[in-house]
Amino acid sequence: MSSCVFCAIVDGTAPAVRVLEDDDVVAFLDIRPVARGHTLVVPRTHAARLEDLDPAAGAAMFRAGQRIARALARSELSTDGTNLVLNDGRAAFQTVFHAHLHVVPRWSGDRLRLGVGLLRRQSHDPESTAALIRDGLDRLTAEEHS
Amino acid sequence: MSSCVFCAIVDGTAPAVRVLEDDDVVAFLDIRPVARGHTLVVPRTHAARLEDLDPAAGAAMFRAGQRIARALARSELSTDGTNLVLNDGRAAFQTVFHAHLHVVPRWSGDRLRLGVGLLRRQSHDPESTAALIRDGLDRLTAEEHS
Repeated sequence: MSSCVFCAIVDGTAPAVRVLEDDDVVAFLDIRPVARGHTLVVPRTHAARLEDLDPAAGAAMFRAGQRIARALARSELSTDGTNLVLNDGRAAFQTVFHAHLHVVPRWSGDRLRLGVGLLRRQSHDPESTAALIRDGLDRLTAEEHS
Repeated sequence: MSSCVFCAIVDGTAPAVRVLEDDDVVAFLDIRPVARGHTLVVPRTHAARLEDLDPAAGAAMFRAGQRIARALARSELSTDGTNLVLNDGRAAFQTVFHAHLHVVPRWSGDRLRLGVGLLRRQSHDPESTAALIRDGLDRLTAEEHS
């Protein structure tokens, strides 16, 4: 028995308005959309976080998101752009702990503040920062080979 | 001659602090980070928009973003979460027209407002909205088979 609402949607035991599905993912409208056509792409297999998500499922999720973005531009919704957003972890505003990709329709002049571009941007020591990230990648690789 | 700054970074003719590269993508620090460790993942092959992006390259970009997110949590940066964000189109705050994925490190209690969760959410007629998106998907499929 899963208490995951997205697993229930995937299973068909909870309602959702679906727009696309394939072997790997189900895509349906967000019930609290930030814009008309706001869609979530959800891997069929439960994974709470990016940490748990099969990279192949993640890739399939992104493919579906790209496809929906291209479809939105061709639809009567006639979007000018799209944000694809994955919130991983509570610190990143993840609220449903079944990894999912937001597909957010955008139009020129809309009032959404969603995106990276409008934020204050500060410089940090890039060389030392990159060294830390590379170190994390090395740790990840070591885990995968142990 | 390309005037695309991300192509120049991929080619090595413009400077960047790289953190990861593979056959499909190059990942480097954003020069105007919204948080320490803010990284961009860029497909090697130029594509301005999601519309132009080879889906296989998009999938590779997402895989790299997921990998970097997992690495950040293992690094001394010790992130609690990550936002993966792709801004497609000027309406979605895209500023460099070579498709790229933002990897934004997050910590509990940080002040970033990035993400989908904090926005006002309005309901729209879901059935008719989904019908429009499915229609767009049908148009896309028809194009692909024509």
